[in-house]
This record gives sequence, structure tokens and C-alpha cells, in this order.
Amino acid sequence: MKSFASDNYAGVLPEVMEALQRANSEHARSYGADDITARTIKLFREVFGADVDVYFVFNGTGANVLSISSATMSYNAVLCADVSHIYCDESSAPETFTGCRFFPLPANDEGKLTPEVIQQRLMRKGDVHYAQTKLLSITQSTEYGTVYKPEEIKAIADLAHANDLYLHMDGSRFLNAAAGLGCELKDISTNVGVDILSLGGTKAGMMFGEAVVVFNKKLSEHIAYKQKQSMQLASKTRFIAAQFEAMLGNDNWRQHATHANKMAQQLNGVLLKYPQIKLTKPVHANAVFAELPVEWTTVLQEKYPFYIWKESSNEARLMCSWDTSSTDIEGFATELERLSQ
Amino acid sequence: MKSFASDNYAGVLPEVMEALQRANSEHARSYGADDITARTIKLFREVFGADVDVYFVFNGTGANVLSISSATMSYNAVLCADVSHIYCDESSAPETFTGCRFFPLPANDEGKLTPEVIQQRLMRKGDVHYAQTKLLSITQSTEYGTVYKPEEIKAIADLAHANDLYLHMDGSRFLNAAAGLGCELKDISTNVGVDILSLGGTKAGMMFGEAVVVFNKKLSEHIAYKQKQSMQLASKTRFIAAQFEAMLGNDNWRQHATHANKMAQQLNGVLLKYPQIKLTKPVHANAVFAELPVEWTTVLQEKYPFYIWKESSNEARLMCSWDTSSTDIEGFATELERLSQ
Amino acid sequence: MKSFASDNYAGVLPEVMEALQRANSEHARSYGADDITARTIKLFREVFGADVDVYFVFNGTGANVLSISSATMSYNAVLCADVSHIYCDESSAPETFTGCRFFPLPANDEGKLTPEVIQQRLMRKGDVHYAQTKLLSITQSTEYGTVYKPEEIKAIADLAHANDLYLHMDGSRFLNAAAGLGCELKDISTNVGVDILSLGGTKAGMMFGEAVVVFNKKLSEHIAYKQKQSMQLASKTRFIAAQFEAMLGNDNWRQHATHANKMAQQLNGVLLKYPQIKLTKPVHANAVFAELPVEWTTVLQEKYPFYIWKESSNEARLMCSWDTSSTDIEGFATELERLSQ
Amino acid sequence: MKSFASDNYAGVLPEVMEALQRANSEHARSYGADDITARTIKLFREVFGADVDVYFVFNGTGANVLSISSATMSYNAVLCADVSHIYCDESSAPETFTGCRFFPLPANDEGKLTPEVIQQRLMRKGDVHYAQTKLLSITQSTEYGTVYKPEEIKAIADLAHANDLYLHMDGSRFLNAAAGLGCELKDISTNVGVDILSLGGTKAGMMFGEAVVVFNKKLSEHIAYKQKQSMQLASKTRFIAAQFEAMLGNDNWRQHATHANKMAQQLNGVLLKYPQIKLTKPVHANAVFAELPVEWTTVLQEKYPFYIWKESSNEARLMCSWDTSSTDIEGFATELERLSQ
Repeated sequence: MKSFASDNYAGVLPEVMEALQRANSEHARSYGADDITARTIKLFREVFGADVDVYFVFNGTGANVLSISSATMSYNAVLCADVSHIYCDESSAPETFTGCRFFPLPANDEGKLTPEVIQQRLMRKGDVHYAQTKLLSITQSTEYGTVYKPEEIKAIADLAHANDLYLHMDGSRFLNAAAGLGCELKDISTNVGVDILSLGGTKAGMMFGEAVVVFNKKLSEHIAYKQKQSMQLASKTRFIAAQFEAMLGNDNWRQHATHANKMAQQLNGVLLKYPQIKLTKPVHANAVFAELPVEWTTVLQEKYPFYIWKESSNEARLMCSWDTSSTDIEGFATELERLSQ
Repeated sequence: MKSFASDNYAGVLPEVMEALQRANSEHARSYGADDITARTIKLFREVFGADVDVYFVFNGTGANVLSISSATMSYNAVLCADVSHIYCDESSAPETFTGCRFFPLPANDEGKLTPEVIQQRLMRKGDVHYAQTKLLSITQSTEYGTVYKPEEIKAIADLAHANDLYLHMDGSRFLNAAAGLGCELKDISTNVGVDILSLGGTKAGMMFGEAVVVFNKKLSEHIAYKQKQSMQLASKTRFIAAQFEAMLGNDNWRQHATHANKMAQQLNGVLLKYPQIKLTKPVHANAVFAELPVEWTTVLQEKYPFYIWKESSNEARLMCSWDTSSTDIEGFATELERLSQ
Repeated sequence: MKSFASDNYAGVLPEVMEALQRANSEHARSYGADDITARTIKLFREVFGADVDVYFVFNGTGANVLSISSATMSYNAVLCADVSHIYCDESSAPETFTGCRFFPLPANDEGKLTPEVIQQRLMRKGDVHYAQTKLLSITQSTEYGTVYKPEEIKAIADLAHANDLYLHMDGSRFLNAAAGLGCELKDISTNVGVDILSLGGTKAGMMFGEAVVVFNKKLSEHIAYKQKQSMQLASKTRFIAAQFEAMLGNDNWRQHATHANKMAQQLNGVLLKYPQIKLTKPVHANAVFAELPVEWTTVLQEKYPFYIWKESSNEARLMCSWDTSSTDIEGFATELERLSQ
Repeated sequence: MKSFASDNYAGVLPEVMEALQRANSEHARSYGADDITARTIKLFREVFGADVDVYFVFNGTGANVLSISSATMSYNAVLCADVSHIYCDESSAPETFTGCRFFPLPANDEGKLTPEVIQQRLMRKGDVHYAQTKLLSITQSTEYGTVYKPEEIKAIADLAHANDLYLHMDGSRFLNAAAGLGCELKDISTNVGVDILSLGGTKAGMMFGEAVVVFNKKLSEHIAYKQKQSMQLASKTRFIAAQFEAMLGNDNWRQHATHANKMAQQLNGVLLKYPQIKLTKPVHANAVFAELPVEWTTVLQEKYPFYIWKESSNEARLMCSWDTSSTDIEGFATELERLSQ
């Protein structure tokens, strides 16, 4: 059964699985001292067009917490969107590991932060009674499936840097964002002022593994120690690196992310046909948000599981992944057609 | 090139790789709500002969920290061997995440803790000035490659429980220990009073993944929340569970762990021939410890990398793994023969 | 010079100073095992009409953090007002020591939380991805100088308990609140469902010291250990206890708190005369909030320092303390009169 | 009743009490922005002969934890004596607040660390698996009442600095040490390489309060923020500063510390008369350690309470304080005389 519940319900891309098998030969040095890891970091530097440092970690929460931790002291505060994953879906892992205060900022209708809303929390610098704001975190693509344009990121980065803040990007769906914009990965990171990026692999079709990409060398001072300390250093690192090599090599990621985004557009097109359905967010990447008739929900979920994002308005989140097919969309369309009659 | 540096230099067992491929079909619910995970937990309950709770995590440090965290408050202390992995090789991850004080106890010649040495730190109960001891951690097999016998564990568990302490077992090489003893997994866990176990998968031939096995239901109260909070909850959990299913099903683990242990015995036999070499520890599992002539070390390491465990006496640690072959041992023997002439 | 900046600018009450001198005779057992401490705890039990546990700590942040810590695990969340001291003025101490997530709730015009606004954050119980809400904290009197009535506290406590939450009260100005209501201390704590109270002494006229009062015995399990661990256990505890004895004995506190409140009313009366000034909050205790003409501010602050609470509307906070006198109010009135002409 | 249990059983010096009363006039700015605090910091700079930064805190654990925290990241390790207060008597406060690992080093017979024993733990620099040692803490006077000579401190400081470690001194009885050596405070701090000092006030005759003295400006970067975050910032700071002003002004401390030391010498002389008693440590400051006949202990403790430091040999610790009198020593002598017959 296919599902629109989450892109982490999907399995592993065939070329990633092949890369895992290829990586499984002979002995290799552990904890990232192997050849595949070295080669893949080199590839990252080419792709991002900069001398980035790369740390391969296990999961998204690990990537986010390690990123934040590398940029903060325990008396610091972090600004993030009120709907962000680090604020809503990572338990208290960010606080427990970093010690920091997290201040939620109201995201706009598209789930984005704007310089205006950020500006309002830039206060009380130097006041020991107030957790000192040191990092701003944005999500690309956002929790609402929308995408920050390069110039939007740049404006936010400029504001952050002017106020002595670092800019972190939670990129668990960064590849879908780049595919949606039709741009290079560096266009929405290296070139627009991102200091540190959690680059998602799992939702994009890997078995496990994310990468923390460090653009600002100041954030490299402690990060290797903190990676180990945050329980995010894999002994057989080669098996994360090999997956990223398969993703980033020859821009393989683009084909799959573009496909997932295209499926979301197709699904969007289907939903548009029904006056009973209200599409609530623009579709920039691989998510579709729509208010559904309450009486349709359970029937639909039985065949194509998905989550209700907001109970009050019965707003559903429908995620497409690398293995969503036109057949799946058509099957969903058939159900809708049946229900609407 | 083969290496005796660590069992985590080895790759992935063929049947584990096959299990990963089989698991890669269709969509599956994330975060452990999938069928493979449910099936594998059932298998754990059969293997351990008890209604254990099982949490699949990413790595050994994660397994240990989660285990300790589930049994302690932040004002508690943990007792462990001075040579233990949690004391020497996991950075300050245990303190940072649990807040606890870690008291090192002197391990005996075999790297084991004894009731006598534990007894000496059982003090100042109820004294608010002293971090209150709540957990005792032992390693099976130990950092010196030796194995606690069931009755040794039982004696330690009884002492722990009589003093209101929980017993944690760091079992990153638990399967090698069971193979060395020729016993069932439950014989050195369920049946002898272990409260919580970090069961190692990676060093035994998995790609990644360990399991926290909870025998004492009191430790289950908070652990699911702490797993997420400690960044150890995999979205595609099925790919850890499937590996364990391949390991534990039909006692597959025994053949591979027994093989690694046998290779260690074979290596031990080779080393015994040379009066220049002093074997320092009994070989119970897959590690051999030996003092080598200083002038031989570099030459040997070039062909068969290994670590010097103790600089002062040039004591080497030689680890065998599931893929160590008689040919490897013979190659090493050839080098020794050449050097000894 | 007198100040309206904060009630912590005031010194120490004469009878408190006398109590300190009386307590300074002979040797006394340290860490709270002395006679004065025992006697004072007995007095607390009489005053609060219950078998409360009492822990004397150094300051308000210590009292709040210890209270929260005694009621939470590190994966928990705490609900508090967005304007609360624990959210705005205690750095990241709450997170660093407890590990918890703090969710701000919008306070109403009077700075209070209401059951309606609390209800909206009572969600996702049992969801490991979401920091599990376990404690609700309210401030009495509030940061806006208003006072929760007994029935308002009871409604909030009932809601908290019905949802398996503990109710913490930050009572750094608890005595002013009780004086304002003309009630007994137990009427706004013991009798209306407060589980744990930070009882403020310093702002009420002590030299240093606050008390954590535990009404719910479940919260007593760990608190003695956590007091030491949170660096809030005084070796010469008798000197905190003696101050509280002087405050609570014969209801001494009431006269001083009532006086401070009366001064605030008098100040309120003065401000009301000027159409240029807008009083923004009802005066229930010892604080007056008023929007002042911008051009008056600096001149006034030079003679009678105070803080601007909200820059955008030039809203000032004017605090009265136990030693504010009618002469001070009249002096301030004279300045206003001069400025208004 | 007088006690030899601890110098924190004693009350407050008369001149300190007078200083507290003098400080209690008019309003003063809170959180250290007052005149007395400014004046006292200036006095510290004169006394220590350097441009030190000074932070007034509540208690010894607070001073130590703040000092350590200002010099470490959470992945660091701290070296300290196995008998030290931070290792044995501050619960897990150091770990919980700093996140660091604490490695105990064996103290010598006099309770001191030596360069040789420190050297052995200076290892694995740059190894991410090992908590990176960054701070060394010594106690002056030691837990055994002995005193490091200036050249001993210098040798340790040089070793620390050569290995990129900071040197912290836990000086809860620093004044007794200086009195014992007959030297200036700077002779055992500023001039011999101490980076940060916890300067004890309470045991020396204050009501409450300690000072963190920062000699190395690198440690000043974060400390003001960490003071607030560690719940060690007093609102009415003037009342701590005033006590230190009374202690340090005109070298007042010396007379009282010298007196306490002299009483310890007198007590030592008394004990020497009895062959049944074995004096176990040299008396450098205000503590006497002696093995007593078991059958004498309870009788003595009833009249003059003291602690048994080591049960196995019935070794008692007898502390003298500023208010110990010759009459007290004579009374104790009388008891001994009676028991010995």
C-alpha cells in the first residue's frame, strides 16, 4: 500500500541500495577515516562550491541538535518558526543537549519567517537576565511544503549576521526545495549566507543518515567533539557516506526530488477539481495541504494513509515521495471521484 | 586489506544485507510502527524468554546513554569499570545527557568488576551532598575480551539489587560473549538479573543499529520518550529491525560470533609460539591482548593494522571479526615468523 | 535616593535585621539541621495550614528552577505566561538545569493565564515527538502587578490536575498578593490546589532568601537532592530561616506588604490626575503601570529611577516597596505637577 | 555548645554583621550595579594586585560550578583530587550544569595533587572519543587541612598551561591557607598562575557569599551570563559585597584566619600528648586529623561534635573556626584527660 503520510514511509532508492552493496567490501577504517567518506566529502565541496566541512549523522534530530550545538553556548537563545520541526517534533532534545532557550516566531501563511518578524525578537543584547539570541533556524522546504527563494534567504541571513546571529537551515527536504526552484544546492546555501545546514538524506530516499554541512568555519571549532558527544558518530560511517555519494553524484538527487515534486503538483491538480476541497498552501515542493470534507477523511485514509495537520479545519497534509507514482495519484483521484458523487 | 584494529572495520554480513533488501519494499510506517519491527520485537521476546521491551537505536553510545538515562535521575551516580567504554570512549555524552556523576571502579586483571570492589563505593546513601548511586554498568564481553560467567553476573546483580541499584550491561560484544560461553542469550541476561542491556549489532556484522533490551519493567516508564529525546529514534526503523531479525532468527548470530572467537583462539595459538610475545589476557571471545616487541609493531601494523592498547608495555589489542579468515591469521603468522628470525 | 525601579532596590526590614543578629549566637548545625530552621518550618506548617515541606534557597531563579525540576523529567514541557519571569528574565537557567521545553502562553490584558488559553496547549499526550507537558506555572502577583483571585487559581489548578499537570506558583511577590486580597496565605495556595510555591522573601524585605513550599507530597521525592544539585543549599541555613521567621511570625509580612500596596494605590491616585498619563493595568498589589509622555521620562527617572516596560508605548513600571513613603509619592507628584505645566 | 564539626557551624564575625547593617541604608541598584559592589571590586583588585574580575555568588558549590563552567565546553573533562569537594560533596551539580566529565586523581598523603600524578591523565588530546581535558582544579587549603606552597602551585600551573589547561583553585578555606603561609593573597593566586579562584567567605566568618575571582581574562567572556544562568546572581548583591569589604579591608581576614589556625595548632598540641591518638596530617591551617580510640569517640562527640572522616581507622576531622576559643580547646583537653585515665 502506498501512503501520503510521510516521505519517510518510502523505502530506499535502488541506486542507494546498490551503493550500500558496493561499499560492503573488505575492511574500512571506522568513524569516518575511510576512503568513501573522504571521497564523498570532496564531492560535497564540489557540489556546494566551497570548502565546507561535512559531518555524517544518523537522523534529522541529530543533525539539527548538532548544528545548533556547534553555534551556541548554553546561555544562548535560538529563534525558530512556531511550526518548525525543532520546536514541535523533536521532544526537548534541543534544550536537553544545548541548554538553550528556544523562542518561537510566528510563521507567515506560507510557513516562512520574515525579516520583520525576526526583527521583533532581536532584543536585550548584553542583558544577562535574558537568554542571549545567537542562532536563527529556518526550514527549507518549510513545514508547509513551501520554498524560500534565494533572495528571501539572503535577506534573512543579512539580518542575522548584522545582529551577530548564525543562520541554520533545517534542510530535511532541502533537495526537494532545490528541485522546486530548479537551482543548484549552493544557490540556496553557500551563496546566500547559510552558516550551517542539516542536509536531509532519509526522506530523499536513503536508508538512514543526514549530513551537517558547515559553511562558516567558526562553527567548525567544536563540532567534531560535539558530534561524538551527541551520539551521532557512526562507527561504520562509510555506509552513510556511500549513500550520499550515490545521491549527490551526477546530480542524481534532482531526478528523484523533481519526480516527488511533480507528483505533488499532479495531486494538487486533482484536488483542485473539487469545490469541497480547499487547497491551503501553494505547492512548491513535495507536500500538498488541503482542507477536506470531514466525512471523506477516514475513507481516504484507509486506502491512502495521511495525517490531519490541523484538526480544527480538517486540514490534511499529503506528502509525495520518490516512489509515489501517477498510478497512486490516479487511485487517490478515483476515491475522491467516488466520494464526491 | 584485513585489519585486527576493530571489529567495526568489518563490513556487513551477507544475510544482513539480504534482509535489508527484502525490507526495502513498499511503504512502511515510520518510527517503529511497522510490521518488521513488531515481528522482530516478538523474536526478541522468544530469544530472551521474557516479556522484554526493545528499543532500536543507532549506535553503541546511544544505546548506553539511553539505558543509563532510563534508570537514573540527574542527581544520581553510576558505577562502572575504569576501563569501560562509557568511561573512556564516549566523550562526555553520558554526563551531558543524563547529568549523572560516573564513578570508576578498578577492574581486575581480566577487566571485570567484582562484588568486593563494587561494595566499596556503596556508601553515603541518603546524603544529599553525594551523588546518589543508582546504577551499576558492566561490559559483556569486557574491554579485555574476557567474559563474565552467568554466576559472576548473578552475584553482581544480587549485590546491586540488594542496594537498590539497577544493573546495566554494555553488550556491544554480547553475542561474542554468549558464543564464547556456549550459552543462550537469556542465560547471561534474563536469568541472572540484568535490568537493561545494550545489545550490540554493528560489531557483530550489522551495517548500523543496536538494541536496548529492557528486562525490568520499572525502566520502561520513561524510555520511549527518552529515546526520541536522545536522538536515537530512526524514522525508517524497519531497517534496523530487519538486521536484527536476520541476526537473531535461527540463532544465526552464533555461527558468526563463534567463528570470530575461533579466529581469536587461532591467533592466540600463533602468538604463543614466540617467547618474545607475552599474552596478557585469557581469550574468551574475539579479542587477543599481547605485549609485542616494540621493533615488530610498525612492520606488523603496516600489513595488519591494530591498536596499541597500552603504550608503556607495548600491549596490543588484536580484534577478530566475523570476516576474519584463517588465511588472515596465517598471513599474520608468516610476518611474525619472518620478524622472529 | 528612592527609586520605583524595583522592590529589590529596597534594603532589609528592621525586624529582619534584628532576627539575623539574634540568630548569630553560638554554633549551629549546617545545611538546615539547626533549631531555627526546624522552628521556622513548623511555623510554615501553621501558616499554610498543611503538612508542607519547605526548602530555603538563595534567590528567585533558584526557587523557580528547583520547583520545576522537582516536578519534571527532562523530556517534559512547562507552560507559562509569555511575560513570565521564568520565560523572560532567568536566562536559560530553566532549560539548562531541567532540560525541559518551555511553551509561552499569551497572558491576558492583566498578565494572567486563563483556562481557555491553557487548554489550547494541552495536546499530543503520549506522543514521543512532542515534549510532554507536565507543569503549569503562574505568577502571583503577576508581572503586571495584578492578582489572581482564589477562584481563578482553583479553576486553573483543576484544569491542570485533570490533565495530569502540576501547578507551580512563582510567588516572588506572593505576600503582596495576599495583602492585596486581604486573605490568608493558605487561601491562595493550600486551599486552591497549588502543588508547589516559590515564596519570595527578598523583595518583601529580606536580605536574601526564598522558600520552596511543597504542598503535593509527590514532589518531595527528589527535591532535597535537587536542592543541593542546583546549588541552592546554604551551609548557614539558619540565616535564611530566621528571616522568614521574622516575616511570617505574627503575620508581620502583612503590615509591610499592605503598606507597599497602599503606596502603589496612592501613586495610582496621583497619576490619575493627569490626562497625559494613561494607567494601563489595575493596581492590585505594589506595581503601577502607566504610559507616560516620552518627554517627561528622563526627567522623572533622574530623581526617581524606574524602568520603561514597553518601549513602543513608553509604558513605565513603577514599583513600591516596604520602605516607599508618602513623602516619596509626594515628591514624585511634585515633579509631575512641574512637568505638566 | 561549641563544635569541631565544621567551620560552617560558626556564626558571623561582628565586623561583618556591622557591615551588613551599614549597607542597609536607602535604595541601591540591584544585581551588582550598586556602589558597595563597585567599591569592593576595586578593593579586590588592590588586594590581588591585578585587574581581576569578581563575581559575588551565594555558596561554594555555586562558586566552583560557575568557575568550571566559565572555562569549559560540555565535551571537556576536568581533573581534580579524588578527595576534593567538587568530586565528593557537591552531588552531581558539576556535571549537570557543565556537562563535563570529572576525572579523579589520587591525592597524596597530604591531600595534594602533584605534577607527576596530573601528568598521567594528560592524554588523548584531539581524540573525539575522549572527553577533552581543559581544566585542573586544586583545593587551597586542601580537604586534609594542608596548604600548597606558592612554588607547588606554580609547578602545577606551569604544567597545566603547558598542556592548554586552565587552573582553578577551590579556595573555600583560601584565607586560612594564606594565614598559614603568612603570605599575601596574591602570592598563592595572581603570582603563581591561578586562572580562576573560588574565594570562600562563609567558612571564614561571613553569613553567606563567596567570590569568583578571574585572573585570566579569557575566562571572562561568558562568565557574567553563566552567573545568572547558574542561579548565582543575587538581587541585593550589596549585602555580599559589603561582607567581603569588611573581610578584605585592612587585611581583617588575617587576624581571624590566623586565630583559627592557631586554635588548630593548640588542639594538635593537646592530642599529641596521648599515645592512644595518632595525628595523621600535618596541621597547616585550621583542621586537625587524628585517629582516635573508638571507645572515646561518642563521648567526645556529645560535648564537642565532630565528624569521623574515615570509618575504617576511626580518623576524626576536627575543624577550628574564627570563634573557637582556648577555653574550647581546654574543655576538649579535659575530656581527653578524663577518658585516658
